[in-house]
Amino acid sequence: MTATADFQTRLFNFSAGPGTLPEAVLREAQEEMLVYPGAGASIIEISHRSPEYTAVMESAQGRLRSLLGLGEDWHILFLGGGASLQFYMAPLNFLPDNGSADYLVTGSWAKKALKEARIVGDARTAASSEDRAFAYIPRPETWQLTRGAAYLHFTSNNTIYGTQFASEPRVEAPLVCDASSDFLSRPMDIDRYAMIYAGAQKNVGPAGVTVVMIRDAFLQKRRQPLPTMLDYGVHAGSLFNTPPVFAVYLVEKVLRWIEGIGGLEAMQAINERKAGRLYERIDRTGFYRGTADADSRSRMNVTFKLPNEELDARFVKEAKAAGLLALKGYRSVGGIRASIYNAMPEAGVEALVSFMDEFERRAG
Amino acid sequence: MTATADFQTRLFNFSAGPGTLPEAVLREAQEEMLVYPGAGASIIEISHRSPEYTAVMESAQGRLRSLLGLGEDWHILFLGGGASLQFYMAPLNFLPDNGSADYLVTGSWAKKALKEARIVGDARTAASSEDRAFAYIPRPETWQLTRGAAYLHFTSNNTIYGTQFASEPRVEAPLVCDASSDFLSRPMDIDRYAMIYAGAQKNVGPAGVTVVMIRDAFLQKRRQPLPTMLDYGVHAGSLFNTPPVFAVYLVEKVLRWIEGIGGLEAMQAINERKAGRLYERIDRTGFYRGTADADSRSRMNVTFKLPNEELDARFVKEAKAAGLLALKGYRSVGGIRASIYNAMPEAGVEALVSFMDEFERRAG
Repeated sequence: MTATADFQTRLFNFSAGPGTLPEAVLREAQEEMLVYPGAGASIIEISHRSPEYTAVMESAQGRLRSLLGLGEDWHILFLGGGASLQFYMAPLNFLPDNGSADYLVTGSWAKKALKEARIVGDARTAASSEDRAFAYIPRPETWQLTRGAAYLHFTSNNTIYGTQFASEPRVEAPLVCDASSDFLSRPMDIDRYAMIYAGAQKNVGPAGVTVVMIRDAFLQKRRQPLPTMLDYGVHAGSLFNTPPVFAVYLVEKVLRWIEGIGGLEAMQAINERKAGRLYERIDRTGFYRGTADADSRSRMNVTFKLPNEELDARFVKEAKAAGLLALKGYRSVGGIRASIYNAMPEAGVEALVSFMDEFERRAG
Repeated sequence: MTATADFQTRLFNFSAGPGTLPEAVLREAQEEMLVYPGAGASIIEISHRSPEYTAVMESAQGRLRSLLGLGEDWHILFLGGGASLQFYMAPLNFLPDNGSADYLVTGSWAKKALKEARIVGDARTAASSEDRAFAYIPRPETWQLTRGAAYLHFTSNNTIYGTQFASEPRVEAPLVCDASSDFLSRPMDIDRYAMIYAGAQKNVGPAGVTVVMIRDAFLQKRRQPLPTMLDYGVHAGSLFNTPPVFAVYLVEKVLRWIEGIGGLEAMQAINERKAGRLYERIDRTGFYRGTADADSRSRMNVTFKLPNEELDARFVKEAKAAGLLALKGYRSVGGIRASIYNAMPEAGVEALVSFMDEFERRAG
């Protein structure tokens, strides 16, 4: 890893998603690209009902079960279509005609989820932080919860605004969580959840698969009939259609990589350390300003601004030249965003901190 | 390529899907797995809005446009969720409340498409070949077409039963085609179509992406409002959500490979030759019997049976030992199925023909 970007060098990649993956995982996929050992063909060329792919999928399910402590009453699905499809599928399955659901609107993705739910039925904003450009997670005592809500939907981490729930909401309604951008970055208090979904392309794999986990008792409450492909019950049975094989195959490798790190508590410790280093550097002088409220800061997406937009742009450009990629903030927000998902090595964060020091000396 | 299967040897793979891909494509993907040239990261680790991925996607669209002769009035989308999701999305967009649609039911997939359409509205069976286990394509003079139908849906090739439309249906209604299992295996008379969709995992790439092509005039007729992710109009605009990056990236390479062969007419000539060789071998003696009517035979999936089920099973097993993989017929049908998609080399077909000769000598 060098700071000079030649054509074939891997650089530190702070992309918000699709994001960086463990190099060891990519190397394994590379080795197996032409022949999955013993299969006579690549994993992407063989039947999704073959013993080889079945073993990969079941291994991924087993490892998820073990990492998260999911009991046998949890269904684990690997669906195509992206987390955005879940914005519609979740209410289509679980928002009954005579009921309602609550949504915590803490960012653009949460807002999109609410919009799709309103196509289905009575979906309510229990809290929103849009009044201050989603710079915080609303405090629980301000939430307006509906008694008997079918579920409470929340987005555990907000990629765009750099905020994150510090812990699971404590509410009576079943929790439905879009965990796309901090999935497997820390342990989860699984007993609190009815359903968790996560697009893979931040922490657990490439784009193209969404991990959907549903507790069986919740699944049984779904509306019927439903279009086949939009019915979680269909996917919870045997494999209905061809899954996104390559994406699931890489997810399985990432899960083994997380196990190698020591599981989710070890992963969390590393992530806390990486985020801590960056926020400490941001707060050390007045040159960089974090954009999220201190108590709502994300450990996955660290957002900050320089004294003016010109410096923001220069920072992004010079960082790229120094081998630190994709630091530009989301298009509607501006500033800097350093996404430091599981696979971002601590060395990458150190390199960014050094660059921030050096840039401030030159430009500050 | 040898007949003895060691752990790392690529064998002739007759899988019906996911199916074999061009080895040259896999080698390129292998080389680029750790670093997409100049990007500092793998193609699966960078933003779907990056210049690199945008170029890949636009290249794939441009090559499809050129290979198929699609005018600028065609939208080309790369969607997740599989062709099975299109079974529902197509009628949801294009089957109006006060209208109806016709379906040609020529196999299991066509039947599934009809089932989803009936969840949306008035979808009718214009013809069916279920009376003889889908062994034929019904003759056009037997079709019961609805005047003013919103569209006619057909499945150009039937993977399971080994049948294929010899040419496009000539009807007044706009044609909607599930071309999953013969897409880009031959030229298409594009002017006849309003919409074509194809899961990639047979002829054009890995599982995880469905190519959806819609003529703009047809797109404008879609119902409104629709759930965002199920609205073709949303996807026809700018990129709405993260696409299945790796699958699109491989599709682009497969398209370049088809260009290298000489385009769709050259591809068709090769495919006709491969299928011709196999059917000729089947018909030469009475030992093997083709299961589809002669005038409905597929050039993609060649289905046949041996004198009894015991011999079918022995054939599959011994073929596998000889390095000819995945020849078992679909679970509900039995017999033998040799899927000879674009990427199956002629040498693979020759090897299968030789094996058939030899097996008949031993067992016939």
